[in-house]
Amino acid sequence: MDKKAINFQEKLSKFTEQWQPKVIAQMNNYQFKVVKIQNDFVWHKHEDTDEVFIVLDGQIRIDFRDGDVTLNSGEMFVIPKGIEHKPYSKQEAHILLVEPEGVLNTGNTSGDMTAENDVWI
Amino acid sequence: MDKKAINFQEKLSKFTEQWQPKVIAQMNNYQFKVVKIQNDFVWHKHEDTDEVFIVLDGQIRIDFRDGDVTLNSGEMFVIPKGIEHKPYSKQEAHILLVEPEGVLNTGNTSGDMTAENDVWI
Repeated sequence: MDKKAINFQEKLSKFTEQWQPKVIAQMNNYQFKVVKIQNDFVWHKHEDTDEVFIVLDGQIRIDFRDGDVTLNSGEMFVIPKGIEHKPYSKQEAHILLVEPEGVLNTGNTSGDMTAENDVWI
Repeated sequence: MDKKAINFQEKLSKFTEQWQPKVIAQMNNYQFKVVKIQNDFVWHKHEDTDEVFIVLDGQIRIDFRDGDVTLNSGEMFVIPKGIEHKPYSKQEAHILLVEPEGVLNTGNTSGDMTAENDVWI
């Protein structure tokens, strides 16, 4: 066991690209990923798993087909499995994602926005 | 789905007792719990699961039989399953725990510090 704290800001300082989640920790088969986001993502869903968003910096909106939720720094939200959603942020925001290993960022909607999976920093 | 952000500080404002984790969210079979801690906890381990500590406010130290790690606000740590540990905080600190539902706070060491499980706020 490496007895070293995992610091969110230090991890975020290691990259600049947006919508490319980076794994910073794993608990059992769940991964903790930091990601920088801005503007609109694509509509997608994860058929087999819930997904957690924790906002570290900034403000984001998560759109659903029947509404939306706004999250600020220090807030979290659980997106239930199978629910279509589209994250959005006017200015760059920094997020901590929690989800099982192997989950693609674009879920059922692969395309230009699909990021390489399981990239550790 | 309740389209409401889960705010850590708002949840923490709802209770004062220490070492009594409160569930604020669930993703699949994993729970997110806030807890206020101060002074020494008991040595214990969780035989069947890793456990995540995320520090929301303050500074904590997690002692292991062969060393320790200090965590400040904005830092996290994964305690591997089966590893004995003892959290400590000189002043009150606020933590976000992530672990499977059903996990007791004292693991294999039940006693006076064992908190009621699955208490939602």
